[in-house]
Amino acid sequence: MSRLLLNCDIGESFGAWRMGLDAEVMPFIDCANIACGFHASDPVTMRRTVALAVAHGVRIGAHPAYPDLVGFGRRSMACSPEEVENMLLYQIGALDGICRVEGSRVSYLKPHGALYNDMMRNPDLLRAVMRAIAAYDRQLPLMLMSTRDNTVAESLAREIGITPWFEVFADRAYDSAGRLVSRTQPGAVHHDAETIAAQALALARGEPLVASDGSTLPLRADTLCVHGDNAGSVAAVQRIREALQGLPA
Amino acid sequence: MSRLLLNCDIGESFGAWRMGLDAEVMPFIDCANIACGFHASDPVTMRRTVALAVAHGVRIGAHPAYPDLVGFGRRSMACSPEEVENMLLYQIGALDGICRVEGSRVSYLKPHGALYNDMMRNPDLLRAVMRAIAAYDRQLPLMLMSTRDNTVAESLAREIGITPWFEVFADRAYDSAGRLVSRTQPGAVHHDAETIAAQALALARGEPLVASDGSTLPLRADTLCVHGDNAGSVAAVQRIREALQGLPA
Amino acid sequence: MSRLLLNCDIGESFGAWRMGLDAEVMPFIDCANIACGFHASDPVTMRRTVALAVAHGVRIGAHPAYPDLVGFGRRSMACSPEEVENMLLYQIGALDGICRVEGSRVSYLKPHGALYNDMMRNPDLLRAVMRAIAAYDRQLPLMLMSTRDNTVAESLAREIGITPWFEVFADRAYDSAGRLVSRTQPGAVHHDAETIAAQALALARGEPLVASDGSTLPLRADTLCVHGDNAGSVAAVQRIREALQGLPA
Amino acid sequence: MSRLLLNCDIGESFGAWRMGLDAEVMPFIDCANIACGFHASDPVTMRRTVALAVAHGVRIGAHPAYPDLVGFGRRSMACSPEEVENMLLYQIGALDGICRVEGSRVSYLKPHGALYNDMMRNPDLLRAVMRAIAAYDRQLPLMLMSTRDNTVAESLAREIGITPWFEVFADRAYDSAGRLVSRTQPGAVHHDAETIAAQALALARGEPLVASDGSTLPLRADTLCVHGDNAGSVAAVQRIREALQGLPA
Repeated sequence: MSRLLLNCDIGESFGAWRMGLDAEVMPFIDCANIACGFHASDPVTMRRTVALAVAHGVRIGAHPAYPDLVGFGRRSMACSPEEVENMLLYQIGALDGICRVEGSRVSYLKPHGALYNDMMRNPDLLRAVMRAIAAYDRQLPLMLMSTRDNTVAESLAREIGITPWFEVFADRAYDSAGRLVSRTQPGAVHHDAETIAAQALALARGEPLVASDGSTLPLRADTLCVHGDNAGSVAAVQRIREALQGLPA
Repeated sequence: MSRLLLNCDIGESFGAWRMGLDAEVMPFIDCANIACGFHASDPVTMRRTVALAVAHGVRIGAHPAYPDLVGFGRRSMACSPEEVENMLLYQIGALDGICRVEGSRVSYLKPHGALYNDMMRNPDLLRAVMRAIAAYDRQLPLMLMSTRDNTVAESLAREIGITPWFEVFADRAYDSAGRLVSRTQPGAVHHDAETIAAQALALARGEPLVASDGSTLPLRADTLCVHGDNAGSVAAVQRIREALQGLPA
Repeated sequence: MSRLLLNCDIGESFGAWRMGLDAEVMPFIDCANIACGFHASDPVTMRRTVALAVAHGVRIGAHPAYPDLVGFGRRSMACSPEEVENMLLYQIGALDGICRVEGSRVSYLKPHGALYNDMMRNPDLLRAVMRAIAAYDRQLPLMLMSTRDNTVAESLAREIGITPWFEVFADRAYDSAGRLVSRTQPGAVHHDAETIAAQALALARGEPLVASDGSTLPLRADTLCVHGDNAGSVAAVQRIREALQGLPA
Repeated sequence: MSRLLLNCDIGESFGAWRMGLDAEVMPFIDCANIACGFHASDPVTMRRTVALAVAHGVRIGAHPAYPDLVGFGRRSMACSPEEVENMLLYQIGALDGICRVEGSRVSYLKPHGALYNDMMRNPDLLRAVMRAIAAYDRQLPLMLMSTRDNTVAESLAREIGITPWFEVFADRAYDSAGRLVSRTQPGAVHHDAETIAAQALALARGEPLVASDGSTLPLRADTLCVHGDNAGSVAAVQRIREALQGLPA
């Protein structure tokens, strides 16, 4: 990968309910994390979302989740590794089925919400996620969270034979371990578009960040998480895209 | 196809709830119609079911349905052709995702319950079903109900470019149009294993049946629907298998 | 009932998804048809919605539906009368459970979407709906659609011992039988706030409408259906409220 | 309460799937913990289950759960106290709605599976459960797990103003703190009907048990949890009932 890919959660409407400015943010991103029906979306919404991504030449990623529509996949569930592995295969396959009719395919995986967080905390779950990818198609990279020390995830990925893409955030402060500062803390979330663009640029250039305690924080950055929830976040994505434009590919 | 394939609904357990004698009936069938999570089953159950089919060398078919777990997909729902097409792509893909991890693939499609019945009555739905197959993989045959006159389904299949497999029943009486006699009528369902095996044998040999009004009923028969609900139905499948054994392949 | 009650579908958000301008329209209505979790809403949303209705002194009605979140209860489902009766008892009870904690109670019933339409077409379903009310609390009126000839519904209500409230529309054209003109026809939906308010006023005064074929159409009008989907519909409700203000109670 | 009430999970079928020997165990129990549709059951099943309980004069308890059909409510979910409180009100109300049509009412509450366990570990959730009861009807007792030291639950119940019913087990070994020995340990589950009946009798008489470390364990016992899963467990319930018969009421 020669550059920092912008990834965004997309296709999170459900039936009659709309969510997110998918059409507005799609022109500015590289990777669309498309909901697969467990925390959001449904077959018709998935079809429209895939068509939109294809129209913009955006890579399609599966964005699978715990089976929890009412909780939007944000509530941790005590699922076994066996359950997680199979629910991922199910969701990746389902999205891939929709992709076929639009002449595309799933090309990476990013677990959603509580499943993403749980996988970062629980190596048994991370292993289950990686096993699902290896069984489905080991060419598909897995997006997971970059921290100061990524050796556990890296060695697990090497062992199972899949490709990790480490994800960073431009709108969040990090602590010295490379974890996101809790949203309950002051300064945890950057709201200023210039600050956000500057952090994105530093990450794209491979420059270390300044952690919340003032220490220097190097972070492996393969992909940057951006948001299309509202007009403000879409504007921030556009600003990031402009900031990254000047970089050598 | 050189012989009458025995197909059976399989994998219709759901979470903690068991249904069907899958392990008992699997040795006697050719084609396993595997539930895809909309009327029955879940990712873990699908995984076990696919593994069982693979272990017995049984072809795996997607058995998609309306989204109605509580009604077991038996209640007609006024879904649009667009909704049906996309829910089929989703379910076929999901099952195919599970198949990959067991080294297999979905190799045909048989819609379930009310969706099967509605597709036989409504050409717009039948067209949507066929479009889904054509988009996913036009090599996958579609099981649909054989009647005296299959020209509508045959010409639609030809137009869309997919392969129809006409399905017949050995345990049901037919009327002169080649429709199943309603279960509310006396004699609609055959319970005697010999009667059932004899009807299966006639269908496999390409011999016409005798319809409920005494008329002669020729039926195209590519596949025969059998059941694994209980010990009696499994015994009937075994008896049918024996009866068909002597036929030239 | 001494006046035309304005009823509005309310509380149709679901989990993280928002729908409808509940807070904006609540001040102008008499009756809130609150979703019960089958086509929309969830226990937390129901709690907030009930609290909002209580704060505005608005009557709370159960707005039960077929179990179809992804289809928003708009797709007819072939549910048996037994299924309909019990799903209504379940949903009324669930909403009533939430009401208790806010010091209120369910005070009427209006089926939602496809269930409403099916009940108007199928006397077996209408009977099941009425039986559910009679069993739960026969004091609860049932909102159903007013047509030129309401005798079937009226006599069924009398037989079962419940109170019908006949519902009319101010923003829709009627045919001579008192059925709504299909939305596919020109002129089926009134968009002008004055036209809508004038039709509401005529209905409130007991004056006949002019049907789409020019004939005179008397309609029993106990309650008027209004909408809180968007700013335009809220403004229309406000205009209707003003128009009705001058009427004797 | 003058005697040890036998409570049993009942009505855990779902749609077309059967579970449990409800009709067989009902004659021997005092309290039926009836599933409310979140981990099992549906409105039609609830109706049949309530009718069965009424026919046997068995008290009806709400058996609410996390919204997790596929996991049968056995997987812990990170639901907030607000979510738990409202999902309980919803489920109690729903069951009560069904009860009305059979001339009965919900008369106590026992949370199911993971929700039961989580409530015992997390005082915020226990408080949410108790608040739901207090808001719905503070006369309804709450079944919760008896341990050596029940003071936390007792004082919380007193504070909120509801009645706790402490539940014990006859087929499980206890540790010295009065917690169930994990099923992964040898001797954790009693399989012999006489051993089970003897433990039930000791609990009913207010005699202390012998804990797994040999220490003496007094346990407050208001109700005993029994099972109707299979013929063996039903026989055990019958044996317990006989053993308790001779006790003074």
